[in-house]
Amino acid sequence: MGAKVAIVGYGTIGKRVADAVALQDDMEIAGVVKTRVSFELSVAKQKEYPIYASDQKSLSLFRGVGIDVQGRVEELLKRTDIVVDCTPKPIGAKNRESLYEPYKMKAIYQGGEKASVSEVSFVAQCNYKEAFGKNHVRVVSCNTTGMSRTLYALHQAFGIKRARATLVRRGTDPGQVKRGPINAIVPTFELPSHHGPDVRTVIPEIEVFTTSLVVPTTIMHMHALSVRLEKEATTKDVLDVFANTPRVRLVKAWDNVHSTAAIMEMSRDFGHPRGDMMEICVWEEGVGSYHDELFYMQAVHQESNVVPENVDAIRAMLEITDDPEESMKKTDESLGLKRWW
Amino acid sequence: MGAKVAIVGYGTIGKRVADAVALQDDMEIAGVVKTRVSFELSVAKQKEYPIYASDQKSLSLFRGVGIDVQGRVEELLKRTDIVVDCTPKPIGAKNRESLYEPYKMKAIYQGGEKASVSEVSFVAQCNYKEAFGKNHVRVVSCNTTGMSRTLYALHQAFGIKRARATLVRRGTDPGQVKRGPINAIVPTFELPSHHGPDVRTVIPEIEVFTTSLVVPTTIMHMHALSVRLEKEATTKDVLDVFANTPRVRLVKAWDNVHSTAAIMEMSRDFGHPRGDMMEICVWEEGVGSYHDELFYMQAVHQESNVVPENVDAIRAMLEITDDPEESMKKTDESLGLKRWW
Amino acid sequence: MGAKVAIVGYGTIGKRVADAVALQDDMEIAGVVKTRVSFELSVAKQKEYPIYASDQKSLSLFRGVGIDVQGRVEELLKRTDIVVDCTPKPIGAKNRESLYEPYKMKAIYQGGEKASVSEVSFVAQCNYKEAFGKNHVRVVSCNTTGMSRTLYALHQAFGIKRARATLVRRGTDPGQVKRGPINAIVPTFELPSHHGPDVRTVIPEIEVFTTSLVVPTTIMHMHALSVRLEKEATTKDVLDVFANTPRVRLVKAWDNVHSTAAIMEMSRDFGHPRGDMMEICVWEEGVGSYHDELFYMQAVHQESNVVPENVDAIRAMLEITDDPEESMKKTDESLGLKRWW
Amino acid sequence: MGAKVAIVGYGTIGKRVADAVALQDDMEIAGVVKTRVSFELSVAKQKEYPIYASDQKSLSLFRGVGIDVQGRVEELLKRTDIVVDCTPKPIGAKNRESLYEPYKMKAIYQGGEKASVSEVSFVAQCNYKEAFGKNHVRVVSCNTTGMSRTLYALHQAFGIKRARATLVRRGTDPGQVKRGPINAIVPTFELPSHHGPDVRTVIPEIEVFTTSLVVPTTIMHMHALSVRLEKEATTKDVLDVFANTPRVRLVKAWDNVHSTAAIMEMSRDFGHPRGDMMEICVWEEGVGSYHDELFYMQAVHQESNVVPENVDAIRAMLEITDDPEESMKKTDESLGLKRWW
Repeated sequence: MGAKVAIVGYGTIGKRVADAVALQDDMEIAGVVKTRVSFELSVAKQKEYPIYASDQKSLSLFRGVGIDVQGRVEELLKRTDIVVDCTPKPIGAKNRESLYEPYKMKAIYQGGEKASVSEVSFVAQCNYKEAFGKNHVRVVSCNTTGMSRTLYALHQAFGIKRARATLVRRGTDPGQVKRGPINAIVPTFELPSHHGPDVRTVIPEIEVFTTSLVVPTTIMHMHALSVRLEKEATTKDVLDVFANTPRVRLVKAWDNVHSTAAIMEMSRDFGHPRGDMMEICVWEEGVGSYHDELFYMQAVHQESNVVPENVDAIRAMLEITDDPEESMKKTDESLGLKRWW
Repeated sequence: MGAKVAIVGYGTIGKRVADAVALQDDMEIAGVVKTRVSFELSVAKQKEYPIYASDQKSLSLFRGVGIDVQGRVEELLKRTDIVVDCTPKPIGAKNRESLYEPYKMKAIYQGGEKASVSEVSFVAQCNYKEAFGKNHVRVVSCNTTGMSRTLYALHQAFGIKRARATLVRRGTDPGQVKRGPINAIVPTFELPSHHGPDVRTVIPEIEVFTTSLVVPTTIMHMHALSVRLEKEATTKDVLDVFANTPRVRLVKAWDNVHSTAAIMEMSRDFGHPRGDMMEICVWEEGVGSYHDELFYMQAVHQESNVVPENVDAIRAMLEITDDPEESMKKTDESLGLKRWW
Repeated sequence: MGAKVAIVGYGTIGKRVADAVALQDDMEIAGVVKTRVSFELSVAKQKEYPIYASDQKSLSLFRGVGIDVQGRVEELLKRTDIVVDCTPKPIGAKNRESLYEPYKMKAIYQGGEKASVSEVSFVAQCNYKEAFGKNHVRVVSCNTTGMSRTLYALHQAFGIKRARATLVRRGTDPGQVKRGPINAIVPTFELPSHHGPDVRTVIPEIEVFTTSLVVPTTIMHMHALSVRLEKEATTKDVLDVFANTPRVRLVKAWDNVHSTAAIMEMSRDFGHPRGDMMEICVWEEGVGSYHDELFYMQAVHQESNVVPENVDAIRAMLEITDDPEESMKKTDESLGLKRWW
Repeated sequence: MGAKVAIVGYGTIGKRVADAVALQDDMEIAGVVKTRVSFELSVAKQKEYPIYASDQKSLSLFRGVGIDVQGRVEELLKRTDIVVDCTPKPIGAKNRESLYEPYKMKAIYQGGEKASVSEVSFVAQCNYKEAFGKNHVRVVSCNTTGMSRTLYALHQAFGIKRARATLVRRGTDPGQVKRGPINAIVPTFELPSHHGPDVRTVIPEIEVFTTSLVVPTTIMHMHALSVRLEKEATTKDVLDVFANTPRVRLVKAWDNVHSTAAIMEMSRDFGHPRGDMMEICVWEEGVGSYHDELFYMQAVHQESNVVPENVDAIRAMLEITDDPEESMKKTDESLGLKRWW
């Protein structure tokens, strides 16, 4: 018997976190909470996740169409040790106030929420210990997690003077059809885009500035980074660091992995559930130096890369272990990720 | 120990057929044949499929980069009971002449090849018995297989006077980036498009006429069909038939399955390997009648829907069983498809 | 001095209708009405179209940012003979009630509105005379106009027993970025889709049934039609009819016009304003017969094909001429369309 | 009577350069050369551009289908003062050797060719005088031209220490359907991408490093730039410089110009032929500073932005004027570009 975990918001992230939690030997799914009818509920049922409705209206709706629903979210919270809130922003912040605080629940929020929703903005390999025993922790967004993983590794190895990144973001997720763009590039008119400051909620000591734009693709984000390092580092030095960094994978154009589409294809071939790629993929052929600047390109699978962080955040907050490596190894082994230990 | 199967051409279709064959208790993979270096070779190795090179040049290339290769395709053929040729057209026809006939190999071809490459154009639920004991069989294309499955079921239940279909085809497969269109609709200037006549290579008695166009998507084809039936049939009658037809799945917009993207999402959630959907998906809300005409819309997963046919064709050609239902049940159960038996 | 025309709603359709009206020697632009700030206002100003605000809030907004605005829509109506309402549905119907009826204005609505908004659903070459002297006329949608033009011509020449069409629709307009789909085909779950019945609001005597789906492109719709004719007609007979039909253009794949993208490219090369293609384009190579059925494919430029109908509707409603050919010739000559007279 | 200009290669760039040349009072089109049959030939004929075939095969083909062709390219060269070669790379370089040198023709090449094809790599506002009287000049690519225009202006005003750019490139041109990607981001595995060094063929004194990737859009490239300046400059200083730089246009998200799609829409509204945008568009809201770094985003219309450079290069090479401003004003006024003089 492990920690009882409730998943509030059973969509793109929620369903993945649920499956990841269910794979751990020290956790179990107490229930999943949904608002609307969808095929995802039949899958939840098949996986024997108890289903709860987010409110009375959903409860009536679910019952009306014959969904096997256990009750409302409030009932679930009574049987739960911790909540992973995977609702779209800003519902997480509202839930904190209306549900989690009244019920004295520990809760994990996703990166769409503001940093102020929680005590810690979390990326396991950067600041696991800060989340130890905490009540409210935010797993940062896919983009922020992606940058944090590689920048932190570089910072530890060589020191970072400054980092610059252009984020080329997907328009919407693969299962969605309502959002565009269909044929345009849409710049973000924030300077820096919120991603740079967001990295600093995790790793305050790195000076990072980002710009961002959105393009007509659904499958991955791409980051073009340029980093000025404190110490000299050859391309090989950098590749060696990434090769040993958890949750970062080197991929090779030479091996026919030429695009985000090829990464997704490879991940499907690996047999990963849903074809997910939870590791940040850095192209070997995209790493290079020019004077004191390091350039690299990385691809981020927005649907899944934060999943392992949610699992680790549970262990930290419930004080299951205070050793980040122990938690991350357990998580990564269960999910079939790269062996780095 | 089962039938030894060689996969010649280890790409989109070949790798899926290999995995499906490996799941059968009456077959095993003798080897897979590839021409170019790609991440797919590492996956093959991990799955313990013996790797062969398609020619001397590939053999040297593979050896040069350290791929664990067993030899050339000719050596594989000596250890093989049957070949599944999954090369792009028209290499299958060339291979028949240069390889399979000289080596007296039974061979299965894919739907890109002309019907004349083989003795039988095959869709398991339509004409399994015609392939029994044959030496050269062609599994028809994804589009032809898709139409054959639903039209044959309707024809058996109600009789078909004439069928008309508009095929809205994906531009290229999800892992590919070279082919377009990016922002256009491209009509096919064949009347009928080759798909209509191709259905008649499988079910000669159905009068079917198709038009076709290509659109900027990678994930599924969509068919809009209109069929005049011999017997009267209500929408419910038709849904009942499809509900009991092998390798056809009813999906519901009501259940949030509104698009080809949602079908793919559902299939990933089901935990299907690679997120594949081997069944033809018919929308319940897209079935309707008007006078003596039946209208329906179906989605076809071009990467995977012919995979079960390849497995059944092996059983038919090697005379493992002469009972189509026995083979199809075995195949479908191993692949986790819909239970129709 | 000609008829004074107000354009209410100055977006994709409105700005085109304004420019077309301004080209006529028997009409002039009394003013254009807009709600939000946009570059389109500077273009309007440059063209010397008087600018009005749709309400007090917009008026203040426009004045606040220095736009040269004449006043509110109500003031414009006092100086106007007829309104062309180009607002998004269902604002046209609301405007009829709150503005046009109180001000006793004749008004033209666009095809997004329900047929009941007006006395006549209008396509110039089908039913110009029905709109003569009327007060409220609806120019039907781009898709309905497209089908009406070719079906009516066929019906007059050969008689139509029944028409069937699959409409492959663009996701959004080229200048828009919010709507998708990015990578999916989205079927419409209406049987028939509303387009079939809508054609019958214009040509009640044609039995037409349509299905529809949306694809990830911005530039044109495509219709795949199959029509059973009363009289026998060869492909050449049909091409001859279309060659002489107003606002229908034959295009040739042979001439490198292979796709909707190539049609748009051709139209830009013709020097058409905005690269518009107001004619329905039928591919010569896409026309063919099978027994008593005629098949053809046509492309519809959703941004512009209804523009000439709006101009003709003005002439009919204001009784400028009761001769459809006279109006259509004048319109088409001014817009540089195909010579059919 | 002006300089006689031959356009060799009458595609995306060639047809635009032809139209621009035809607008000048000191030049005329001696002929345009094409290889394949296409609707573009009918447009050329309508514009009264003499048509020539690129070789004997094309000549026979054109004559066979009734195209009014004057002869082969060699005959055109005899009546020509200068050639603008707009063929796809590397045909320009081949033509230099086989045609232009034997015929002692001055020739302009496009940016797909290597810099070594010519004596000067040309952007009018950067190095017009270097091309004065030269025989072989290369107008650099759309991306290089785009970066050169804004970087050179910044360099003159403030001095540039180093420039960094991420180029987010369109997959193919709007009229094309064969090339992808449909749903992927494709990084370029060159570090730097060739664009950085290419800028230095025009402005050797600027240290510029670029990375590049391709996305599924057809309409414009987007550049995200970061530049370290010698002198301090506020955002306003920078905007003032761009406001006065030829062939650079400031656009405003505030004005509803939020994306590349909106720029194209605006350009169509302006009435520009083919909806072209020959100016580099910089978003006002995308310009900002952080310490000594300037960030900005610019959009480049790959089909048309090099057209004015081709016109100016003709004037420089034929010594029509040695004053860059005189030539550029003449060009820009004829093309309806921004008034900067």
